[in-house]
Amino acid sequence: MTSTALQGISRLVTNDPTRGAGLLGVVEDAAVVIEGSTVSWVGPRSELGPADQLVDLGGRCVLPGWVDSHSHLVFAGDRSAEFGARMAGAPYAAGGIMATVGPTRAATDEELLARVQRLLAEMIAGGTTCVETKTGYGLDLVTEVRSARIARAAGVDEVTFLGAHLLPPEFAGDADGYIDLVCGRMLAGVLPEVSWIDVFCESGAFDEDQSRRVLEAGRAAGLGLRVHGNQLGTGPGVALAVELGAASVDHCTYLSPQDIDALAASTTVATLLPACDLSTRQAAAPGRALVDAGATVALAANCNPGSSYTTSMSLVVALAVLQCRMTVAEAVWSATAGGAAALGRTDVGRIVAGARADLHVLDAPAEDYLAYRVGVPLTHAVWKAGTRY
Amino acid sequence: MTSTALQGISRLVTNDPTRGAGLLGVVEDAAVVIEGSTVSWVGPRSELGPADQLVDLGGRCVLPGWVDSHSHLVFAGDRSAEFGARMAGAPYAAGGIMATVGPTRAATDEELLARVQRLLAEMIAGGTTCVETKTGYGLDLVTEVRSARIARAAGVDEVTFLGAHLLPPEFAGDADGYIDLVCGRMLAGVLPEVSWIDVFCESGAFDEDQSRRVLEAGRAAGLGLRVHGNQLGTGPGVALAVELGAASVDHCTYLSPQDIDALAASTTVATLLPACDLSTRQAAAPGRALVDAGATVALAANCNPGSSYTTSMSLVVALAVLQCRMTVAEAVWSATAGGAAALGRTDVGRIVAGARADLHVLDAPAEDYLAYRVGVPLTHAVWKAGTRY
Repeated sequence: MTSTALQGISRLVTNDPTRGAGLLGVVEDAAVVIEGSTVSWVGPRSELGPADQLVDLGGRCVLPGWVDSHSHLVFAGDRSAEFGARMAGAPYAAGGIMATVGPTRAATDEELLARVQRLLAEMIAGGTTCVETKTGYGLDLVTEVRSARIARAAGVDEVTFLGAHLLPPEFAGDADGYIDLVCGRMLAGVLPEVSWIDVFCESGAFDEDQSRRVLEAGRAAGLGLRVHGNQLGTGPGVALAVELGAASVDHCTYLSPQDIDALAASTTVATLLPACDLSTRQAAAPGRALVDAGATVALAANCNPGSSYTTSMSLVVALAVLQCRMTVAEAVWSATAGGAAALGRTDVGRIVAGARADLHVLDAPAEDYLAYRVGVPLTHAVWKAGTRY
Repeated sequence: MTSTALQGISRLVTNDPTRGAGLLGVVEDAAVVIEGSTVSWVGPRSELGPADQLVDLGGRCVLPGWVDSHSHLVFAGDRSAEFGARMAGAPYAAGGIMATVGPTRAATDEELLARVQRLLAEMIAGGTTCVETKTGYGLDLVTEVRSARIARAAGVDEVTFLGAHLLPPEFAGDADGYIDLVCGRMLAGVLPEVSWIDVFCESGAFDEDQSRRVLEAGRAAGLGLRVHGNQLGTGPGVALAVELGAASVDHCTYLSPQDIDALAASTTVATLLPACDLSTRQAAAPGRALVDAGATVALAANCNPGSSYTTSMSLVVALAVLQCRMTVAEAVWSATAGGAAALGRTDVGRIVAGARADLHVLDAPAEDYLAYRVGVPLTHAVWKAGTRY
């Protein structure tokens, strides 16, 4: 197998504290060898052996590719005008999701796939090499199954079933009837395509009991658990996620002290979505308090047409630093290794021998520039599974 | 002269309310004709006459190029580590400027020029076609004059003398002696290169009396007036700027009700720097209150190595919307026509016959996407003075 050695790396973020300095396991003046889709060697350049190809990165910083563990890419329609109206004064509410459901049901498979592919291309151009995405703009059997298939066909790394995103109008006044459908035929239909089940446990979406039913049905079907919770106010989402051992609870914008303690004592990752909080003009999520308490924090972009139509994980990292008051090292860790933890993966989010060769080369000598130069596109090159983009 | 017609413009922001709809004077399905460095015709595509060349923009939105009326591009050194330390807890203070002064004094003209050129290239790649920049990292006669010459040589549109940026250590305890130098030999030395004088009127920099001396000396020498004020707390900067009829007072993060009233009743533009407020973890400037009061607001990136090392006016517009609570139209106006007003120019910031052909083509059908897709690079193409970049 052909080996490619990358050198000229000013700082290599390995996320392996046994190999380098600090939380990020930084190796200075480093080299990395890729064979096929995998990293085969990592170390100081002075110890680099022979390789078939040599690429000099000119003194740039290399990170693991972003692991974006929360997105909603399968949708149709355009909500930019709704966004503009909101910026002129209208508030954000969970019900806005319905504006996307009609166009998504009406779209062809080809239209939906083309949009997912366009957004995935934008993500990889911005350094994101591992992506989770969710169903949840169909809210009927046919469209939820189509959505899951399309996400899988597009090559998304992790697909999540989010039939319980919002109560569709056909079930107005009969939330329990809809939950029956989600836990029954809908779950059975999507099951071959998905690894995870998720529920929007929030005022205006689903309550604690309904959320519990969804998660328990998913677990019984062999799926991992994720929860949308505590986005628009405090609520039962975090406590439920921790109780059921969910891999992640996402948003966490409004947390009680008890929520923070529960997360810190659990294996459930707190996934923050700072671009969503910014885009909905909400408060910044308590990143500093979560890290200080000892919780595992992930960062994700939450790309979706309503509350956060961005794919930029570099912006998310900058916002986590500038608004959630995390350090740059904490934010970079959370957007790589933290995202991997939220997805239960060990093959991504680290640059170590045996990991998938997902590398993000910055046009900067150090990771600090991601926040220091907020808004400036800093992605110089990307490798995903050993292929350069 | 060769004429080039641009069509396939979904929305053309002219900033001429007599030509199109709303504050931005939007023409839908529009065309623009460029001859040489100038716009020669603007209107609906259906009325477009013959032209030598035809460019189809594929249904994209076209804005005037950003007018970035506040930057500090002439400097040397690297403050990313200081930034990282600040993000780990150290506060921002005006004195940080001194960290840049030593390296700037020590740098060669070629090094300084190369940095300015690199940043100008980054700006134009992000849609910025008119740039103001300041001296102020020399703080001695030789380096201030060198800085002004280098800015001029690099092709910056407007050069501002900011000898009164901070008191240099050679004058510790003798601020009045330094002001004598600024108003005397330093001003005389830079005068052939600059159009504006500026002063950092802030606790830790220069007080009201010192600031007044600097501004009056500049006015006597024929320069226009600008003020840095109210960045780190309320203070006399805004009132002084209004009293002296300055073209702009910049930062305006902390304003009293009296400051807002004074700005609204004046011709002084309030220039907000939201990326700086974000990067220093400060409160958002009161954009909404200023617009509601009737003040003229400009938006600028304040690219500098200490408090805001970004060139992204698209991010600035998004932050003005999402954090300062301006509408998208208000923010786009402020980052184009508002910046032009802050620089006393009528040839930029508008797309009308006779204006400089500075055009910013978005990879999006409408200007709302600048905030809706915050963080996603949306610049598709840029024309500056009729040349495509």
